[in-house]
Amino acid sequence: MQAELNVSFDRLVAFIREALTVLGLPAADAKTVATLMAQADLQGSDGHGVTRLPQYARRIKAGGFNVSPNIRVVRDHPGTALIDGDNGMGHLVMKRAAEIAIEKARITGIAWVSSQFSNHAGPASLYASMPLAHDMIGLYFAVGNANHLPPWGGLDMLLSTNPIAAAIPAGNEWAIVLDMATTVAAYGKVKTKALRGETMPEGWMIDREGKPLTDPKRAEEGMLLPLGGMEAGYKGYGLALIIGLLAGTLGGAAMGKDVIDFNHDDGSVTNTGQAIAAINIAAFGEVDVFKSSVDRLIGDLRGSARIPGVDRIYVPGERSHEIRERRSSDGIPIASALLQGLDKLAGELGIAKLI
Amino acid sequence: MQAELNVSFDRLVAFIREALTVLGLPAADAKTVATLMAQADLQGSDGHGVTRLPQYARRIKAGGFNVSPNIRVVRDHPGTALIDGDNGMGHLVMKRAAEIAIEKARITGIAWVSSQFSNHAGPASLYASMPLAHDMIGLYFAVGNANHLPPWGGLDMLLSTNPIAAAIPAGNEWAIVLDMATTVAAYGKVKTKALRGETMPEGWMIDREGKPLTDPKRAEEGMLLPLGGMEAGYKGYGLALIIGLLAGTLGGAAMGKDVIDFNHDDGSVTNTGQAIAAINIAAFGEVDVFKSSVDRLIGDLRGSARIPGVDRIYVPGERSHEIRERRSSDGIPIASALLQGLDKLAGELGIAKLI
Repeated sequence: MQAELNVSFDRLVAFIREALTVLGLPAADAKTVATLMAQADLQGSDGHGVTRLPQYARRIKAGGFNVSPNIRVVRDHPGTALIDGDNGMGHLVMKRAAEIAIEKARITGIAWVSSQFSNHAGPASLYASMPLAHDMIGLYFAVGNANHLPPWGGLDMLLSTNPIAAAIPAGNEWAIVLDMATTVAAYGKVKTKALRGETMPEGWMIDREGKPLTDPKRAEEGMLLPLGGMEAGYKGYGLALIIGLLAGTLGGAAMGKDVIDFNHDDGSVTNTGQAIAAINIAAFGEVDVFKSSVDRLIGDLRGSARIPGVDRIYVPGERSHEIRERRSSDGIPIASALLQGLDKLAGELGIAKLI
Repeated sequence: MQAELNVSFDRLVAFIREALTVLGLPAADAKTVATLMAQADLQGSDGHGVTRLPQYARRIKAGGFNVSPNIRVVRDHPGTALIDGDNGMGHLVMKRAAEIAIEKARITGIAWVSSQFSNHAGPASLYASMPLAHDMIGLYFAVGNANHLPPWGGLDMLLSTNPIAAAIPAGNEWAIVLDMATTVAAYGKVKTKALRGETMPEGWMIDREGKPLTDPKRAEEGMLLPLGGMEAGYKGYGLALIIGLLAGTLGGAAMGKDVIDFNHDDGSVTNTGQAIAAINIAAFGEVDVFKSSVDRLIGDLRGSARIPGVDRIYVPGERSHEIRERRSSDGIPIASALLQGLDKLAGELGIAKLI
């Protein structure tokens, strides 16, 4: 166990915001990115929140992000738009994309906004959830920022863990929010296993002979298995491919060989692609009726008889909602190794430490 | 091995068409359904083609299908529509849905059409592929017609194998066509194993104690595992749930407890829900550029180095395209057990046998 200190959401936002401002982002943009990054931590998406700040800072210093991008619509139809992110931070690009999708879907019933020249934007669920407040369903697709997945049967890592997220509003219940990588395990989980000196379960990775790889320190020798694993991994491969085509190729963003590994390259333009869809529930029926149906379904799922040993049945997103509530009152835990990195960054930028 | 006889596509269409006409469908509808069912067989979706005809016939006789439905749009927005299928055959409903989606997407860039009071429509890929000829991407979601999947950790079978299909046009290459159930194995594969007296691999099903179930004759005692299996089945559960909400709940169709098991109930209105989306590639960029990118990506995937023992890397849909070509010239194989059932049906209906 690492020692942890807790920090409030507001303090975390303020810290990230100050760092990004010193790094050159305009005040409004720094606030937007800081809020979204801290929301990632608040909901337990720890791999996508403040832990990314040192990397983002390195990337800004290396010229890999444009700190004053001209984010603009370059193709426009009643139900679609293509946004050029001008290599700005992905959070800014995708927040804009979500806003446009929501406005269009009010009129058309559904809207789809794709990005090009965007960047890593944090957890998919943040953007898929933006339409919820407007009684809309949100869908989000992204090309991951590093290729760790070969085609089924192959060795060349041409695909990423391309995530899909979906958010469905409920009535009295929390919204259903799915956010999943299309591999069995996300690469971040492998790195965590390595840090902890643990072995991986069979089924997360295979080596170049196709045999199970369970030593996370040998991860560089292996490949992630697509969702479905040895038995049905061709399905996860298919999903990762389709999501990449929808989020990347459709909008003229990088896909396949063109994807930049942004963990090992701070300077190159990634041309990251994402896509968000907003579906206006009112275009299909009464919103209250829909929400009641979702509530009833959640109740049925939760009330299902359980396999012996299972304490509780979860609905996608429920754990994140609970973490958000808990951390909103108790604060957000910051692991000591992360805090050291943030302290170092604060020193470099000449700002107050987080804690 | 069962003995098999081959039949031409045209003969198969004519046989199904004559059967459906005698069963009471208007001539144009009988032709439409027959063509789509035979296309399922032509592309190797054998579980969704003529093998369903005896069941459909039983259902029509039992009053479970409306043979002269008034299929109509009941909600309409520039980019969306809700179709009431009036309990007609699903093939008719979803062909209409695809046509409406394609027309709307010409103007709006994207369109989404949901159905209610539809029925089983055959393979998802047939409908997802309809936008391809219009240089559009097709997406298709359906609520399966029998619940074999519990929530993750649960025992109550509240979910179906809800499939997703996506079709992406290419240039010189065949289109990429993904069509997958959200369980490790579709229920039809379990039934095939039972017929052949084979055991199932671990990971297809579990029993009510959560232990692997490998005897397909005991399938009624167990549950399908969601895509991801024991390690990551919560992802397949999440996908099945989201697809059900999009295809069923959104359009006011059956989902969860309300789903009718149409394999064991010929008379009840199923209120099946499906949804199709058409995405107009021209709304995002030059169609030729997009298609060239897809061709290049397919080439990269196919050309990947391979795990030892793997002969070839496939792109989703490639096997179906090959089967379609082969069967177009050599004919469609009809297993003897199926042929017996079709001969019996022909006798009942007073029409010529298939072969």
